[in-house]
Amino acid sequence: MEHLKEKTVKSEKLFNGRVIDLYLEEVELPNGKTSTREIIKHPGAVAVVAITDKGKIVMVRQYRKAMDRILVEIPAGKLENGEKPEVTAIRELQEETGYTCDGVTPLISFYTSPGFADELVHLFVANGLKKDNQKHSLDEDEFVDLVEVTLNEALQMMESKEIYDAKTAYAIQYLQLQQMRK
Amino acid sequence: MEHLKEKTVKSEKLFNGRVIDLYLEEVELPNGKTSTREIIKHPGAVAVVAITDKGKIVMVRQYRKAMDRILVEIPAGKLENGEKPEVTAIRELQEETGYTCDGVTPLISFYTSPGFADELVHLFVANGLKKDNQKHSLDEDEFVDLVEVTLNEALQMMESKEIYDAKTAYAIQYLQLQQMRK
Repeated sequence: MEHLKEKTVKSEKLFNGRVIDLYLEEVELPNGKTSTREIIKHPGAVAVVAITDKGKIVMVRQYRKAMDRILVEIPAGKLENGEKPEVTAIRELQEETGYTCDGVTPLISFYTSPGFADELVHLFVANGLKKDNQKHSLDEDEFVDLVEVTLNEALQMMESKEIYDAKTAYAIQYLQLQQMRK
Repeated sequence: MEHLKEKTVKSEKLFNGRVIDLYLEEVELPNGKTSTREIIKHPGAVAVVAITDKGKIVMVRQYRKAMDRILVEIPAGKLENGEKPEVTAIRELQEETGYTCDGVTPLISFYTSPGFADELVHLFVANGLKKDNQKHSLDEDEFVDLVEVTLNEALQMMESKEIYDAKTAYAIQYLQLQQMRK
């Protein structure tokens, strides 16, 4: 595969953020020429497919600054330093929705934007979901509403673009596939 | 939904790139407190699900600098200024794989990383796929290999993490769903 690889000639860190870092890299291409790559480094994230005992999908409605719009997504959050994805998944589910679970099973992991970012999202399915009576505790700059919908309602929300992100679209398609296999 | 929204207090453009721009934004939260948001602006992208007359999925193997690894993905590319996504899709398919098509049908669009980027990817299904005998013409800093695999082979490549990105994972699950509906 050496005929595809790029060698790093120079790497410059242009921004060191709370969530992301930005690098500008000069690379040597397989043909010997050079080019630049704009690279975002991200700690990675988790997302959780959680289904209530009434068969509803647990989701959160939240404002997303990058798009200046409110989206409905499956519960998710970025990995904290050194934390195992499974632990982050259980914690984020509880913080964002008030649901606890006995554990999570890995569903799939994928890079979200391989062209410019190294963000890897780990999707899990929650097992033994229970509604916690205690108030859930969000991050201090996080504001979300709990939304519980049927698979058909979720499909309608994809039509209306309330649901409009890759991990949630993947999760809903996964649930469609599961339903057809029954 | 006003109880979820954030107001922009200040927006500073920290980087103006060839592909992405970086903004650091100060926001007023719904509770009146302030926080910062690190935002990537991206022109958006397209990706194409193309199936040969032998039932194989047309994909490309390419090096991705952000992860320093070679991935197999469905053909994709970023939107050029003012170009319609359908036009970009047909062009990228031809450039990356040498396949032409009669047209493309929209499958789904989704934001890839709503937590920090506004990248919207438009997925299309190619209709009337034909192998072009002319040499395909990649961008001058783009090096890719054509890969044609069955759905089962693609599923194995997901297991081995050669296929490892959101749009391709979505596309393969879509093809699984299509196969079950037959």
